[in-house]
Amino acid sequence: MNIQTKPDIARKNPSRAPATGDVTVGPRAGGRKVYDTGERFADLRVPFHQIDLHPSANEAPVVVYDPSGPYTDPAATIDIARGLPDVRSAWIARRGDADAVAVPRVVRPEDNGGATGEMLAPEFDNSRRTILRGRAGRPVTQLEYARAGIVTEEMEYIAIRENLRRAKDAQVMRDGEDFGASVPDFVTPEFVRDEVARGRAVIPANINHPEVEPMIIGRNFLVKINANIGNSAVLSHVADEVDKMVWATRWGADTVMDLSTGRNIHNIRDWIVRNAPVPIGTVPIYQALEKVDGIAEDLTWDVFRDTLIEQAEQGVDYFTIHAGVRLPFVPLTANRVTGIVSRGGSIMAKWCLAHHRESFLYEHFAEICEIMRAYDVTFSLGDGLRPGSIADANDDAQFAELRTLGELTQVAWDHGCQVMIEGPGHVPMHKIKANMDEQLKHCGEAPFYTLGPLTTDIAPGYDHITSAIGAAMIGWFGTAMLCYVTPKEHLGLPDRDDVKTGVITYKLAAHAADLAKGHPSARLHDDAISRARFEFRWEDQFNLGLDPETARCFHDETLPKEAHKTA
Amino acid sequence: MNIQTKPDIARKNPSRAPATGDVTVGPRAGGRKVYDTGERFADLRVPFHQIDLHPSANEAPVVVYDPSGPYTDPAATIDIARGLPDVRSAWIARRGDADAVAVPRVVRPEDNGGATGEMLAPEFDNSRRTILRGRAGRPVTQLEYARAGIVTEEMEYIAIRENLRRAKDAQVMRDGEDFGASVPDFVTPEFVRDEVARGRAVIPANINHPEVEPMIIGRNFLVKINANIGNSAVLSHVADEVDKMVWATRWGADTVMDLSTGRNIHNIRDWIVRNAPVPIGTVPIYQALEKVDGIAEDLTWDVFRDTLIEQAEQGVDYFTIHAGVRLPFVPLTANRVTGIVSRGGSIMAKWCLAHHRESFLYEHFAEICEIMRAYDVTFSLGDGLRPGSIADANDDAQFAELRTLGELTQVAWDHGCQVMIEGPGHVPMHKIKANMDEQLKHCGEAPFYTLGPLTTDIAPGYDHITSAIGAAMIGWFGTAMLCYVTPKEHLGLPDRDDVKTGVITYKLAAHAADLAKGHPSARLHDDAISRARFEFRWEDQFNLGLDPETARCFHDETLPKEAHKTA
Repeated sequence: MNIQTKPDIARKNPSRAPATGDVTVGPRAGGRKVYDTGERFADLRVPFHQIDLHPSANEAPVVVYDPSGPYTDPAATIDIARGLPDVRSAWIARRGDADAVAVPRVVRPEDNGGATGEMLAPEFDNSRRTILRGRAGRPVTQLEYARAGIVTEEMEYIAIRENLRRAKDAQVMRDGEDFGASVPDFVTPEFVRDEVARGRAVIPANINHPEVEPMIIGRNFLVKINANIGNSAVLSHVADEVDKMVWATRWGADTVMDLSTGRNIHNIRDWIVRNAPVPIGTVPIYQALEKVDGIAEDLTWDVFRDTLIEQAEQGVDYFTIHAGVRLPFVPLTANRVTGIVSRGGSIMAKWCLAHHRESFLYEHFAEICEIMRAYDVTFSLGDGLRPGSIADANDDAQFAELRTLGELTQVAWDHGCQVMIEGPGHVPMHKIKANMDEQLKHCGEAPFYTLGPLTTDIAPGYDHITSAIGAAMIGWFGTAMLCYVTPKEHLGLPDRDDVKTGVITYKLAAHAADLAKGHPSARLHDDAISRARFEFRWEDQFNLGLDPETARCFHDETLPKEAHKTA
Repeated sequence: MNIQTKPDIARKNPSRAPATGDVTVGPRAGGRKVYDTGERFADLRVPFHQIDLHPSANEAPVVVYDPSGPYTDPAATIDIARGLPDVRSAWIARRGDADAVAVPRVVRPEDNGGATGEMLAPEFDNSRRTILRGRAGRPVTQLEYARAGIVTEEMEYIAIRENLRRAKDAQVMRDGEDFGASVPDFVTPEFVRDEVARGRAVIPANINHPEVEPMIIGRNFLVKINANIGNSAVLSHVADEVDKMVWATRWGADTVMDLSTGRNIHNIRDWIVRNAPVPIGTVPIYQALEKVDGIAEDLTWDVFRDTLIEQAEQGVDYFTIHAGVRLPFVPLTANRVTGIVSRGGSIMAKWCLAHHRESFLYEHFAEICEIMRAYDVTFSLGDGLRPGSIADANDDAQFAELRTLGELTQVAWDHGCQVMIEGPGHVPMHKIKANMDEQLKHCGEAPFYTLGPLTTDIAPGYDHITSAIGAAMIGWFGTAMLCYVTPKEHLGLPDRDDVKTGVITYKLAAHAADLAKGHPSARLHDDAISRARFEFRWEDQFNLGLDPETARCFHDETLPKEAHKTA
């Protein structure tokens, strides 16, 4: 997936610490933040964005999912230097299944690419943190709790969150084609538990990321979206990455991947994780590569293992692991039009070919599982051989890897780890469904997490749209999370505007998927905005839209008079 | 469909005549204009946009469809005051089936909404025009020629155009799912004739629009797109509408609908048609309504009939006729969330209810056919009861009208008229295919022409994207032409940037549909850009994209060095 940062970063001083003024705070337009508490657990505070309608409508408020965290709560105090308030530590403590790590891993110069002096990004102050690790012989992952029949705080939180304040006995409208999914009318904590237990959903929530507001990724829940951020080798500034993370969640990103490369990876990630209300994903091989000066052949299991522990202790919630790029599959890409386009995939292919050995990720997979289980880091099994063009879609290389990911899913599950599976990429419309069908067939219904897919290659500059078409379709077919693509895909590094455009484009694609699946809450939102439209309640129409400011601005460009908004 | 114009028009003087400097001329970025001639007809000059690749690629040029007309030919002289050069008059003359109208209809003040003085848009100088009408007892429509086994100049032109300079014996790649379409490997003039003869394709080409470069709309040809332009009651300037028409075709609009309302409708349309290289569509009921001062109840068959003749003599190539909005169907919309959202549909519903009478369009349909046949104006049977929200998709009102459109298609065919059928609108993904299936079932395979459909209602400001998802899908399923939606949909009047965004969004959706159908030329374009991407031939990648300037600009924002484009 792409490496992203802002164009003006190079002009800034990387050694300046991010400040609270660097991020966007304040209520989201059009509604207000509200919270619900749990029935089992009184210390849950589940957020929603509630949109109250004009009194003339005589309608109940519309409640939408809100991943934006405390930043959009006017009552919250934001302090980037301290990080977000703790959500989960009390829960983890009372479960009593994790211990403080006696000797946490010490940060080394290579963790930040050897940056020093002015080139070194400032450290986050971790003096208040305790680093946890699961106690031997006890459950630590949400999967292990679920299998043991335990409803965790995270599970009740998620059940409340997914229902969007609908009453348990509210009438629901089930109008959709779900291709065999089992979306319930009302989500109970037990349903969450059962879906997690059978591996059909994941709750990415590292025990070292207590700031996260729990969320779930699974075919029988609302479709989620991910936004990629991260600095690159040539451009780097911590504050911009924290800003983009906050900005992405403000518009609706459910998880954020930090795909930083180059220097300062460790310190940047610290700032991001400590300030992230959503799960953070990474691709550890990127940092491992930096530790061996960018030479793929020099990668070793030890360097990789060290990186996993480093990032798990920091609190990363899910890792992309390209363990399906096996030595025998690399030749299958020889006749492709675009070879291997996944960065992680090409690193591992290079390593395999240079040593003519099986991938160390594949060979050490059980050890990777043990490490990730100990912190409840969720697997995102990477599709290193995903197609990079329409021409290469659904080819032998891609599907050979997918079958291997299915095999690895079983291994990870045997170790108690949560797993999701990454998918393409570039796929013409008529080949999209086969991707979902093959994934369901081979990967035991583990959640699918796709990048688009782009449905044509001919529109650089508009790939958020070429890919939204594929994303909406594959979301409908059963994909649980859609990784956004921005207008800068294939061309350059997305800026803040691109992040917003990508997130909103994917929010609408995910919602279109929920609608087509017949998700019981999806139509409520569409119907409310349609009624507002029909009754010329312009303010309600703006407020109910994904981007109220833009809608209002477009309207006012041609019909600026206030009267036009109520007539 | 929506009424569109520029925001700053009111500040301009409507009585200024458009000048050549008002429109964008010059080569399209990335390639050059080339022409081919016919085998049967030596006076054909079929345009293409040819993209030559970097010599290092050692590849044939990529040829793409080019609806932009002489404006993008550096060798052409453009003079808006004279109109475009004549393409078809010699063909029409040598067929000898049309006569000059002895007494053409005289322009009346009400044709321009009674505008006078400074408020009257200037007249186009029609002194050089001869107005034609089909001779009694002779074929005049392309359908009639086709049924008589005659290959017209238009048909050979189209056959050449659709093949995009591929050799007849070139190997083709047929990888797609076409749902029963019959796209040939190579389009012959006879194939064009046969598809037109059976009503499965239309060639919108009024004999009074000799400037048009012939094109075809049908399920077995490349998917086409339409762009809507037009002034509105509050904003009006001729030059801006001519500019938007030229601008839309520059980016790839295959037809343009002039949806003008308010004053000056006649004169604006004259300027547009005389300068349009693509077929122009209109909704005659809009102008008829202006002639009765906007009071739907005052509409009469005589006023409508007069408007049809007025516009047919001007050279409009297709008319949207909402003859399927029958009196008994209006009550079916009573319980809808968004009632009747089609402007033409609501005008006719209002008329039917006010008089409690069957629609005069339905009752006089045979006479409408006689008029349209005489000039070869193609029917676009309007979906006046299309859903305006997800809630109303595929309801009884919509499908009752669709069945009536099927019945009217047979009547129009019996009169020798070409017909296409308009479709929605707002439809969630799981209900899109039923629209195509029902249309195929009831409308005898007449080409389907849909607006989007939007797949969710919750993203005002982004409806070009919510609708591109639906458009790509329904194009794949068999829709022949996709009417664009711009970011301003539901909110305001699109400006020039919105027109461009809408057109490019729909070009990529139409191409995604061609790809998924397995159109034999579609993959060539994708594969060429993918190879360029893989080989870091940046200039080729930009040039092969739908919008080379934007792609280059996005690239240069972060990696401006020339070296980055070849490395």
